Amino acid sequence: MNEWLKKPVKSITNSFHELAVNHQSQLTKPPGSLGALEDIAIKFSVWQETLSPTIENPMIAIFAADHGIANENVSAFPQAVTTEMIRNFSNGGAAISVIAESMNIPLHIIDMGTVVEAENLKGVISKRIAAGTKNFAVEPAMTQKHCYQALNTGAEFIKQANINSVDVFIGGEMGIANTSSATAIASVLLNQSASNLVGPGTGLNQSAVKNKSIIIQKAIDLHQKNFLNETGELDPILVLQTVGGFEIAALVGAYLACAQHGIPILVDGFICSVAALVTTHIAPNSKDWMFFSHESAEPGHQIILKSLNVKPLLSLNMRLGEASGAALSLATIELALNLHNKMATFEQAAVSNKTN
Amino acid sequence: MNEWLKKPVKSITNSFHELAVNHQSQLTKPPGSLGALEDIAIKFSVWQETLSPTIENPMIAIFAADHGIANENVSAFPQAVTTEMIRNFSNGGAAISVIAESMNIPLHIIDMGTVVEAENLKGVISKRIAAGTKNFAVEPAMTQKHCYQALNTGAEFIKQANINSVDVFIGGEMGIANTSSATAIASVLLNQSASNLVGPGTGLNQSAVKNKSIIIQKAIDLHQKNFLNETGELDPILVLQTVGGFEIAALVGAYLACAQHGIPILVDGFICSVAALVTTHIAPNSKDWMFFSHESAEPGHQIILKSLNVKPLLSLNMRLGEASGAALSLATIELALNLHNKMATFEQAAVSNKTN
Repeated sequence: MNEWLKKPVKSITNSFHELAVNHQSQLTKPPGSLGALEDIAIKFSVWQETLSPTIENPMIAIFAADHGIANENVSAFPQAVTTEMIRNFSNGGAAISVIAESMNIPLHIIDMGTVVEAENLKGVISKRIAAGTKNFAVEPAMTQKHCYQALNTGAEFIKQANINSVDVFIGGEMGIANTSSATAIASVLLNQSASNLVGPGTGLNQSAVKNKSIIIQKAIDLHQKNFLNETGELDPILVLQTVGGFEIAALVGAYLACAQHGIPILVDGFICSVAALVTTHIAPNSKDWMFFSHESAEPGHQIILKSLNVKPLLSLNMRLGEASGAALSLATIELALNLHNKMATFEQAAVSNKTN
Repeated sequence: MNEWLKKPVKSITNSFHELAVNHQSQLTKPPGSLGALEDIAIKFSVWQETLSPTIENPMIAIFAADHGIANENVSAFPQAVTTEMIRNFSNGGAAISVIAESMNIPLHIIDMGTVVEAENLKGVISKRIAAGTKNFAVEPAMTQKHCYQALNTGAEFIKQANINSVDVFIGGEMGIANTSSATAIASVLLNQSASNLVGPGTGLNQSAVKNKSIIIQKAIDLHQKNFLNETGELDPILVLQTVGGFEIAALVGAYLACAQHGIPILVDGFICSVAALVTTHIAPNSKDWMFFSHESAEPGHQIILKSLNVKPLLSLNMRLGEASGAALSLATIELALNLHNKMATFEQAAVSNKTN
């Protein structure tokens, strides 16, 4: 059932890189003057193996779940908000709903396991594993079975998306207390103390952030042995199982499956970047299929981005999650592809080129 | 004829600031979590004096002109490119043409005076002052009459735009060698040496940048007295006249008229920011109506932005001009306004608010 995890990532064929760079150099502008927009067009040329890359069929999926660690007062919002926001996503009132509707991108919500089960809601798919994870301050967040179930849910979702010819995957998350889970995962994988990576999440004050940091660090210390496989090596899936969340594990499964199927991924902010980090620990080449959309205001995000050696496209001081930054970035990405496809070349426009 | 220059800038009524901030705090998201997008919505609420700001009628105007300073080999491209690019704008092949068409924004091109006059072209308005400015390395770029003519052209354009209810003005420029002119203006106004502000423009190599810096500095030294009015004070319009360009002066006129009429301005990159700097030297409050869209890769831009004490929305390593960065930023701005107008409040969505 879990053999798919070992499937290789789709390899990038670099022949289109040079062709796309060459095409950009012929467009009527000083070489390099479109900056990041040129890089985007070149990336998509390589991903789509064409000189005229387009995005016809993007998709947003928000994975939502509750976290036992919320019992430790690590969030500024009550746990009920996870389910309440699932309703808000469905009713069109959340930030991601407005962005998805404005940009005409299909939005899917996946309930991975909230404490309060929502009624049947339009656009919400139930893939509930349990009524939230266990409190990882006292015990592992998930059983092995639950962790693989979450990974598989993400991967199955992408398998279907691939059949439906989705050409860009935008994953998002919702789950009260999930910055605590993400911080714990990143601290373990990057071998950093929790205090380096911890932040206010939805808006904790300074003393509450300190409390959050202490709780996460204690949990990491408690679980040291749970992170290691039989041969004593740090195992990213065991880290996910021990201090992760259902929605984070689903994102890891989805990202890995995207990289295997060759579907470009727009990575959102802090939590999604931690899921991306876990994915690269499972399959380093998965990074080839990731595009980091924005830098979050959550302070730990910079450390994650640096460890992945990536520079995100936008920096808008956002820290909302819900895939909001990634979905928003698609507007800029689509313009970059239009420029690549529709600008005249120096020859077509009879414009003189550089003199030196 | 030039009395309009002294007309006061439209004052900002701040009553909508608090109302818009309060509305943002009621939307279903952690307070502040939409970062720069919240600031945009609040700004437009204040500008439009409404809680539901929208952009219905944006407009792009590219002012194009040639520069006598091009004779000093300060550009990587030949001077013929200014007119060739006017044709390319008209034919839809330039970057700004593609962005304007993708985003459905009307694009106007104004020929302020190129060396080679273009034939009649669709969307191009002739407001030619002369066949380019004089070479300011040896003499003032413009006569007083020409400078005011350029300022008035920009202002008249906005007067008409105001009659047509334009709600966002996006100015742009085209003119081979105009980074030299902009660098000279900024150096004088900020009392900095040219070498601090000079950059590669369309793509000079290191030794050519050094040559450009020396030429600009010599010209500034030559013209010291020309920058001062009868009472010995630095006069921004005399600076513009002496080392500026027709298209830069038209932008100054347009920006000032926007601020007088209360039309929000999306400022593009290096050259447009220098025009904005001149405008704030004429009327400091004009800055209230400016929104800085992106940080250019041209190194001097950072210094201009810092001197204006503004942080632009995007940083995409672009350095093309043509209003390309400003027009592109409108996609993000429109999403910010949609979020402000369409997200549900905590009460509407029955979502629990912060617990502390």
